[in-house]
Amino acid sequence: MYRKPVFGLLVLLTTFHLALGQDEDKITIRSFFDRALSERQSYQWLADLCAIGPRLSGSENSLKAIHWVKGVMDTCGFDRVYLQPTLVPHWERGNPEKAVLHDSEGGVYELNVLAIGGSVATPPGGIFAEIVEVPSLMAIDDLSREDVEGKIVFYNPPFDQTNIATGASYGSNVGTRAQGAVKAAKKGAVASIIRSVSSGWDDAPHTGTGHYEADVDSIPAAALGVKSADLVQHIIRLDPHAKLHLTMHGRWHEDATSYNVIAELKGTEFPEEIIVMGGHMDSWDVGEGAHDDGAGCMHSLGALKLLVDGDFKPKRTIRAVMFINEENGTRGGQEYADQAVKNGEKHIVAIESDAGGYTPRGFGVTSSEDQRKKLENWLEYFPKNTISYMSKGGGGVDIGPLHRADGTPMIGLSVDGQKMFDLHHSANDVFEAVHPRELELGTASMATLVYLLSEYGL
Amino acid sequence: MYRKPVFGLLVLLTTFHLALGQDEDKITIRSFFDRALSERQSYQWLADLCAIGPRLSGSENSLKAIHWVKGVMDTCGFDRVYLQPTLVPHWERGNPEKAVLHDSEGGVYELNVLAIGGSVATPPGGIFAEIVEVPSLMAIDDLSREDVEGKIVFYNPPFDQTNIATGASYGSNVGTRAQGAVKAAKKGAVASIIRSVSSGWDDAPHTGTGHYEADVDSIPAAALGVKSADLVQHIIRLDPHAKLHLTMHGRWHEDATSYNVIAELKGTEFPEEIIVMGGHMDSWDVGEGAHDDGAGCMHSLGALKLLVDGDFKPKRTIRAVMFINEENGTRGGQEYADQAVKNGEKHIVAIESDAGGYTPRGFGVTSSEDQRKKLENWLEYFPKNTISYMSKGGGGVDIGPLHRADGTPMIGLSVDGQKMFDLHHSANDVFEAVHPRELELGTASMATLVYLLSEYGL
Repeated sequence: MYRKPVFGLLVLLTTFHLALGQDEDKITIRSFFDRALSERQSYQWLADLCAIGPRLSGSENSLKAIHWVKGVMDTCGFDRVYLQPTLVPHWERGNPEKAVLHDSEGGVYELNVLAIGGSVATPPGGIFAEIVEVPSLMAIDDLSREDVEGKIVFYNPPFDQTNIATGASYGSNVGTRAQGAVKAAKKGAVASIIRSVSSGWDDAPHTGTGHYEADVDSIPAAALGVKSADLVQHIIRLDPHAKLHLTMHGRWHEDATSYNVIAELKGTEFPEEIIVMGGHMDSWDVGEGAHDDGAGCMHSLGALKLLVDGDFKPKRTIRAVMFINEENGTRGGQEYADQAVKNGEKHIVAIESDAGGYTPRGFGVTSSEDQRKKLENWLEYFPKNTISYMSKGGGGVDIGPLHRADGTPMIGLSVDGQKMFDLHHSANDVFEAVHPRELELGTASMATLVYLLSEYGL
Repeated sequence: MYRKPVFGLLVLLTTFHLALGQDEDKITIRSFFDRALSERQSYQWLADLCAIGPRLSGSENSLKAIHWVKGVMDTCGFDRVYLQPTLVPHWERGNPEKAVLHDSEGGVYELNVLAIGGSVATPPGGIFAEIVEVPSLMAIDDLSREDVEGKIVFYNPPFDQTNIATGASYGSNVGTRAQGAVKAAKKGAVASIIRSVSSGWDDAPHTGTGHYEADVDSIPAAALGVKSADLVQHIIRLDPHAKLHLTMHGRWHEDATSYNVIAELKGTEFPEEIIVMGGHMDSWDVGEGAHDDGAGCMHSLGALKLLVDGDFKPKRTIRAVMFINEENGTRGGQEYADQAVKNGEKHIVAIESDAGGYTPRGFGVTSSEDQRKKLENWLEYFPKNTISYMSKGGGGVDIGPLHRADGTPMIGLSVDGQKMFDLHHSANDVFEAVHPRELELGTASMATLVYLLSEYGL
């Protein structure tokens, strides 16, 4: 029997069908970008979210934001929208901090300062003490107890501007913010202040989480604006007996009930295979948490909305999760993982956007090499000047617990991060610092990734 | 004779030598990025340049800027610094324009307006006429002479937000700015106004160059801010007899003498092979021309400075050229090409940065495919999140004449362009809109490209 032409035809048809499938995917994906850029739904939602104000875990604002986003989700036509309760830490800054430098000749300099998250208060009248400057967290080991006792330790490490990945420089200095007070207290310091972990050159202090240890005195811990840190450095090097008057009012409350907020599209072919993407709903208690991480929340919610508005019926189940408490506890991420394990859920991948609402550049991937290569083959689906790599390593704080619990592969969105640490955790992280087109390119990139994952698995 | 081991050794040594060369290149290139990001020389120079103010060709400011940049170059240790004279067009806006909309019920609305570059003035008391709105340049063809005669034509095309390359949307609408007045005049209009070619949503009008034709009446041409355009649209659709009072003062002077400014490092091995890179020194006469194109000038000058400061002796000759008159004449680019041809110079490549001082993303290349592939093989030298492609097509207005004259391959720097057309040619294109790290990544990327071109040719 002469079958060769038939076989040839089959090959032709198959090739044609594959090419057609690919073309359809490209058309669908192009529609995500077109709609994101013209409708700007994520950006409009971000405006509403930011109008609520800062959303630290346990705060009234954080609950307002949670109920606001659930209300939005309820209007979107998703298959399921629900709250996932969890207890979260609840710390409050109280009245604004004050830091006033007094030099030996009667000069008085008011500094820009913020308590580091979780810091205890000073005694009611504040602390008035000399300052000992150290260039890094480790450098305090070189000082004797007499050098430090009764003084305020001033950790003053510069931000390394040479890293192109500004997150690496942030990472190098964030330990000072987290551990500075404990190390200072161990040598008898009465308070700990740091140069804000900031890539910028303004005077907005940057907060962030700090730690205490049970067997070490909890001393007040604060961050100075970069220009204030420069001023302190300048003055105390000339005048070592200058003193700082530091007044802070932070206090801890009982853990509060809060929630992850989850929206879901049910898979039509493999409903038990779950793709989860998310950002975190909580922010620090200054600014509006626009880039950190209102942007990541709206990337995820906006992506799910693009899918549902395109009448797309996903083969696999897709969830957008607004995690709570990334900043100072990761209780939301932990609760999500605990529930997933308890309910025997099978996640094929977890994706997080928590690098800001800037132009997307790539995804960082923690998975098998075969899985990463599969993702890399999809790069052609992303328009030029959006996603250009699927690099090794990446994920996110909120999806870390799931990854550690059951090995779910993790993917983190990478964006153009040159400006992020200028405003991260400061009063400047506001809606006006987000550009609509840049934000929406992130949303469409997330939609593209979950669309392909839903169609073709990982 | 048994030679195999010797041959093996030779292979080994050659491989080792090649690898070492590559490592040395990587170390050199890393030093460009380290120094650019920590020293911020381009950014500091850009501050000085922008402090001069706008620099339209023929203006006093443009000459100040030219002499300032030559002065800077003279201090840099380059092999040669020189001015290349050329005549340039000289148009002045004169006193600020005014556009006031009067509705039929006595309502008066002051609009934000700028003359399009090169526009004639209105008669002294201004023009007072009804407005006829058209959705695009071509749409005026559908109107009869009676529809238009004695009226002000209002071209109102929206900016297409769906293009990821915002330059494509700009390109679609820029013909309206350039040709609108001629087409309107041909139907008897008394003036032509356009919705600014802008991706933003504010009320800063965007200027840019316009054209007249010898045999068509030159009528005043102006651009409205986007919100002003929205207002006009809203009112005239309700009230077709609303009238616009337009007063403009533009005038032409004799051509003025101006200059390209050129700095050169002489090649040590192939001095006759020239690599030229540049931006344009002139800007529009509002704002500070910070992104357009102070950034491109400082990219090029900063790159040459990185090379000379690294004690690099280039094999091929490298020039940084600050071209004059990109915005309304290209006389500088033409003069450079004319001189190159006249002097029998051999350029191996011409590079332009005129897309703004944002984070670099790639280079666009107009060359043979083999040359482009050679460039593509160098992508590994560029750090992650900087240059990620060498795509087909690209160049620049200033290097176009050289390319056309002798076929010199052209390369244009592509940057993250999402915000560029929010401020391009408007009062918002100021130094404060440029981010130091983003600008310096462009400088180091330019240095990397010319370093490799100088070492290995094209």
